[in-house]
Amino acid sequence: MASDPSPLQDFCVADKDSPVRVNGFPCKDVKDVKVDDFFLAANLDKPMDTTKSKVGSNVTLVNVMKLAGLNTLGISMARIDYAPNGQNPPHTHPRATEILTVLEGSLYVGFVTSNPDNKFFSKMLNKGDVFVFPQGLIHFQFNPSHDKPAVAIAALSSQNPGAITIANAVFGSKPPIADEVLAKAFQVDKNVVDWLQAQFWENNHN
Amino acid sequence: MASDPSPLQDFCVADKDSPVRVNGFPCKDVKDVKVDDFFLAANLDKPMDTTKSKVGSNVTLVNVMKLAGLNTLGISMARIDYAPNGQNPPHTHPRATEILTVLEGSLYVGFVTSNPDNKFFSKMLNKGDVFVFPQGLIHFQFNPSHDKPAVAIAALSSQNPGAITIANAVFGSKPPIADEVLAKAFQVDKNVVDWLQAQFWENNHN
Amino acid sequence: MASDPSPLQDFCVADKDSPVRVNGFPCKDVKDVKVDDFFLAANLDKPMDTTKSKVGSNVTLVNVMKLAGLNTLGISMARIDYAPNGQNPPHTHPRATEILTVLEGSLYVGFVTSNPDNKFFSKMLNKGDVFVFPQGLIHFQFNPSHDKPAVAIAALSSQNPGAITIANAVFGSKPPIADEVLAKAFQVDKNVVDWLQAQFWENNHN
Amino acid sequence: MASDPSPLQDFCVADKDSPVRVNGFPCKDVKDVKVDDFFLAANLDKPMDTTKSKVGSNVTLVNVMKLAGLNTLGISMARIDYAPNGQNPPHTHPRATEILTVLEGSLYVGFVTSNPDNKFFSKMLNKGDVFVFPQGLIHFQFNPSHDKPAVAIAALSSQNPGAITIANAVFGSKPPIADEVLAKAFQVDKNVVDWLQAQFWENNHN
Amino acid sequence: MASDPSPLQDFCVADKDSPVRVNGFPCKDVKDVKVDDFFLAANLDKPMDTTKSKVGSNVTLVNVMKLAGLNTLGISMARIDYAPNGQNPPHTHPRATEILTVLEGSLYVGFVTSNPDNKFFSKMLNKGDVFVFPQGLIHFQFNPSHDKPAVAIAALSSQNPGAITIANAVFGSKPPIADEVLAKAFQVDKNVVDWLQAQFWENNHN
Amino acid sequence: MASDPSPLQDFCVADKDSPVRVNGFPCKDVKDVKVDDFFLAANLDKPMDTTKSKVGSNVTLVNVMKLAGLNTLGISMARIDYAPNGQNPPHTHPRATEILTVLEGSLYVGFVTSNPDNKFFSKMLNKGDVFVFPQGLIHFQFNPSHDKPAVAIAALSSQNPGAITIANAVFGSKPPIADEVLAKAFQVDKNVVDWLQAQFWENNHN
Repeated sequence: MASDPSPLQDFCVADKDSPVRVNGFPCKDVKDVKVDDFFLAANLDKPMDTTKSKVGSNVTLVNVMKLAGLNTLGISMARIDYAPNGQNPPHTHPRATEILTVLEGSLYVGFVTSNPDNKFFSKMLNKGDVFVFPQGLIHFQFNPSHDKPAVAIAALSSQNPGAITIANAVFGSKPPIADEVLAKAFQVDKNVVDWLQAQFWENNHN
Repeated sequence: MASDPSPLQDFCVADKDSPVRVNGFPCKDVKDVKVDDFFLAANLDKPMDTTKSKVGSNVTLVNVMKLAGLNTLGISMARIDYAPNGQNPPHTHPRATEILTVLEGSLYVGFVTSNPDNKFFSKMLNKGDVFVFPQGLIHFQFNPSHDKPAVAIAALSSQNPGAITIANAVFGSKPPIADEVLAKAFQVDKNVVDWLQAQFWENNHN
Repeated sequence: MASDPSPLQDFCVADKDSPVRVNGFPCKDVKDVKVDDFFLAANLDKPMDTTKSKVGSNVTLVNVMKLAGLNTLGISMARIDYAPNGQNPPHTHPRATEILTVLEGSLYVGFVTSNPDNKFFSKMLNKGDVFVFPQGLIHFQFNPSHDKPAVAIAALSSQNPGAITIANAVFGSKPPIADEVLAKAFQVDKNVVDWLQAQFWENNHN
Repeated sequence: MASDPSPLQDFCVADKDSPVRVNGFPCKDVKDVKVDDFFLAANLDKPMDTTKSKVGSNVTLVNVMKLAGLNTLGISMARIDYAPNGQNPPHTHPRATEILTVLEGSLYVGFVTSNPDNKFFSKMLNKGDVFVFPQGLIHFQFNPSHDKPAVAIAALSSQNPGAITIANAVFGSKPPIADEVLAKAFQVDKNVVDWLQAQFWENNHN
Repeated sequence: MASDPSPLQDFCVADKDSPVRVNGFPCKDVKDVKVDDFFLAANLDKPMDTTKSKVGSNVTLVNVMKLAGLNTLGISMARIDYAPNGQNPPHTHPRATEILTVLEGSLYVGFVTSNPDNKFFSKMLNKGDVFVFPQGLIHFQFNPSHDKPAVAIAALSSQNPGAITIANAVFGSKPPIADEVLAKAFQVDKNVVDWLQAQFWENNHN
Repeated sequence: MASDPSPLQDFCVADKDSPVRVNGFPCKDVKDVKVDDFFLAANLDKPMDTTKSKVGSNVTLVNVMKLAGLNTLGISMARIDYAPNGQNPPHTHPRATEILTVLEGSLYVGFVTSNPDNKFFSKMLNKGDVFVFPQGLIHFQFNPSHDKPAVAIAALSSQNPGAITIANAVFGSKPPIADEVLAKAFQVDKNVVDWLQAQFWENNHN
C-alpha cells in the first residue's frame, strides 16, 4: 500500500519485546532508542545462496520485523538473487507497490492487471533499469540467462508489505484447500490438484 | 483497501463523460447532480443466471463505474449467486477488504494468509451469518449443496476494489505468461501449462 | 470515513480482553487467532422485532465490537428492519459512508447536504435497488407502506462508523443541553424544549 | 477529518477558473503561482456584525474556497463572533475536528457523543482557553453574557470541513423533508413540524 | 501532515500515564474521560515574555502532549509572541501544514520551495490577515517593527506537528555534527562551523 | 510521507501531456498505457560524475516525473554517488521517509531529531548495510574515504518525495531571504549572511 498510517512523532521504533500487539508495533521508550534501531547489517551486497531453492531465487527482505526503526514509516527494502533461469515466482504484495532496479544480469519481468482484462505487461530489464509493479497485482521476475545469476534491489511502500506466492498459497496452504474447489477453479482433475498439493512449496523469502 | 482517499466536499459524483482522467474520477458539476446519481436499480433481489458460468457463479458488483455517486466514498456492494456446487473461485481484491452475509443456502468459505505460513482459514456459513475476508488475501466461496443455489450480499472497502481471479490472471492472461516461468512456479511440465493456457478463463464478474 | 487507517499485517483481530486501549483495538496474538474471529452468526436473515421501537425500526449492526476480525479493515455491515410506516430517523455516521440495498418492501430515503444549501435529495427505493449516503451527511430511511415491513442490508466504510441520531443527541443527551441554547437554535419556546427533553429517546441500534 | 489526502508536491494551489472538477480542486500552473495565493486579507481582527443574525453569531471561515493555497493541505481557520446571548447553534463538521480559543468574552461550549450514550460534555471557557470538538460530533458555542460580545478563533482539520447546522438541515432543507418523517423522529405533531419548516433558517457562516 | 491517521471511535483521549507507547498515544478508559480532557486553560490571550529569547519570540503550542483530547484528531494550535524585530526563525514542521492569522502588529513572513527552485515566497501581513505555510517547507515569521510587539495565532494539521528550527538542528545538535560535513555543506571554514556550534541555540517553543 | 493517497484503480500512469494539473498527475487513457510506462532505462548501475559537484555527490532520482507509472503508487528510488570525501549535504524530504543501502564504499550517515532535543543519531555504514531516515528529519550522508568513491541505492515513500537542501534553501533561495532575518537566526553578522548568499548553491539532484 501507498498508505501505511502516518507517523505522529519523529519515530516510533518497534518494541519487539512488548507484550502489547497493535496495528504495526508499539514503540520503544524514546530514552532507549539508539542509532542501531535505524540500522541493519543486512549484507545486501553479498550473493545469497540460490542453489537450495526450487525456483532458483532468494529474497532478503528488510522489513519492520528486521529493522525496528521502520515502524510507522511506510517503506521496506529487499535484495533478490536469481540463479540462472531462476525466478521470483508469481506473487502479490497485499500491502505495497514495488519498485526494482537490476544490479547484475538481466531480468524478464511482468505483471497482470485485474479482471476482466488480465492484461500481461512484460519487459526485459538490463543492469541499471528500473521497473514498478503496481500494488496488489500478480507479478514475477525471471532470469532468462542459462548461465549467469542476476541480482536486484527492490523497495516496497509498506513497513510490512507481505508476499503471497500464488502457487504456495493456492496449492501449499496449511491445511490444504478442498481439492473439489481447486479442481473446478483451475479446470483440472482432482487428482492433479492432489498431486500439486502433495508437492513441497518452499518459501523463497528470508 | 481501508484507505481510499477521503472526500473533500459533500460528494464528488463521477463524471463519466469527462475527457479528464484522475485517480478515481473527476466530479460532475454540483448543479447537475441529481438524486439518481446516488441510486442504482441494481436488481440485487433477482437471482442471476449461473448456468452459463463454468465455475457456477455470478458476481453483480455495484462499484463507482455503475453508481457514480460512490466516487471518493470508499465503499461498494455486490450480490453473488452460486449454482449448486458453484464457487466464486480463489481471488484477491487488490484494494479492499470484503464483508459478506449469506442470504440463501450455505457457503463454505476460506482465505489463506501470506508467506511463509499460508495458513488456510475456512468456515461453513449458513443463512444470516457474516464473514470478513481481510484485504489482499486469496479467498473463495463455495456452495457445498448438490441441489440448492446460494446467494450472498458482500460489501467492499473501496469504490473500485478490483478482483484478480487467480487462475484467470495466471493462466488466462493476454498475452500468456511464458510457459517456462509458470512450469517452474507451479512445478508442472510446460505442456500442462500450455494446456491450461489454452482453456477459456471466464470472468464471473458482471 | 473512507479512511480508517490501513492494516500493517494480514489481520489484527481485536483483543477485547486487553487492558490496553488504542485507536481501534489492540490485536490478539496471531497464534490465538481462529477462524471464528472472522465470523459472526449474526442472524441477518431473521426479521427483528420492531414493535417495541417508537420509531418503528431496528438496526442490527455488525461492527468491530461484535466481529473482532474487522479491526483495522475499514468496513462493517448492518441489517435494518422497518415496521409499516417505521423509519430509521435522521442521523449521521461521523466516520463512514453508507451503501444500502432493499431486501424486502420499499423505502423512501433521503439525505441533506451541508450549509448553506441544505439541499434535500430523496428517492423511493424498491427491492433490489442500491443507494449511497455520503459520509457525515444527515440521512434517513422511511417505510411508506401502511401494512408491510421493509428490510435493508447496509454496509459502512469504517470498522466503527458510529451513529448520531439527531433527535436523540440534541434532545436526549445526558445531561440535557441547556434549554436556552436549544430554544434559540430551534426557534421554539423553552417549554417546548423542556417537553422534548422529557421524552424518552430510544436508541434503535442493537 | 484528520485525513484529507496528502499533498504530492510542495503545493497545489486551487485553480478556481478550471473547468475541471476533482476531489478538492485542480492546481494552478506552478509558473502562475504568486505569494497572494497563500494569503487572504481576511480581516479576522475585525468584529463582524451579529445583529442581523437570528442566533446571534457570525462565522467567518477561511477555507480553500477563499484561500486557494489551502488546497491539498488539510486545514482551515475561522473567526466566530457572538452577540450577547448569541450562539453558534448545534452543528457538525462532516470532514473535520475543530480546535478553538476564546479571544474575547466567555463561551459555554459542549458536544454530544454518538449513540447509544449521547453523553453531553460541556465547559465554560474564558479568554485564552482552548477546547477541542472531536470530528463529526454535534457541538455548539453559546455566549452566556447578557451584555458583552464574545469572539473565538477556530481551526479545522480539513481544507473544506463543511458545516451542518442541525436545525437548518432538518427543518430548513430545500425541499422540506416529509413532515410525517420528522414528526415521528422528533415525537411532535405534524403541525409543529410544519410550523418549524415555515420558519426562516438562516446560515450564520460567511 | 494533512494525514494523521483517522479516529476509529468518537475520541481516544491520550492516556499519559500508560506504560504502553504507540503511534500517537494509547487511550484513557472512556469511563474516565472528563470534559477537562478536551480543555486547556492555555492563556493564549496573555502576552508571553520574549525578552529572554535570543531570537525575540515565544511559541506557546497546544499539542496532544498538553491537551490529551487531541489524540487521533489531527490538529493543534499555537500562540506566537514576537518582540520588536523578533522572529520565529526558519524552521519546518515535519508533520504539518500551518495556517496563521495576525492578532497584533505586523509580520513579514515567507517560505522557500524545495529543490531545485528554492523559490522564496514572502509577504507582509497586517492584523487580521491569514497565511498558509505548506507542509514540510522551510518558513519563518519576522516582526519588522522596531518598537511594537506582534502576536499571531496559528493552527497545524497534526496532533504533534513537530518543529525543526534549522539553525538549532544543524549547528546545535547534541552531539554536534562533524564540522567537516557542515563546512563543506555551508561553504565555510571549519572554524566558522566550530564557532557556530559553540553558540547557545535556544528553543523558542514552550 | 508514508501517506501518498492510495490508488483507486490498478494504475494511473501520469499523463505528462495533459493540460490538467491535479494533486499528483492526471492519468493516461488505459488504452494508451504501455509497458514502457512502468519502465525507465535509468542507468542506476553507472557511476555518475561527481567531479563537477561542489559537495562531491550526485543524486539520480527516479520519481514520478521520470517514471510515469509511479503516479498514485507512493514510492520512488534513487542512486547516489559520492566522490571521496563527498557528501549529500543536510536536507529533508518534506513528503517521505528514506531507506538506503550502501553498494560501494562506506558512508557516515546521520539525522537530527526535532525540537527541543535536536538529538543527532549517526552511524558508519559499510557495503550491504541498511539505514532508515525518518520522514521530515534533517539528514545527510558523507563519504569518509579520502580516495574511494561510495555508492548507495535509496528508496523513498512518495512518488515525489521532494528534497530541501538546507544550505541552498536558506542561503540560496531566489530571491534571497532578508539578511536581517538570517543574521539573527544563525547568530552571525549580516555581512556573513551576505557573503553566503553570494555563493553558488548547486543542486546535486538530477
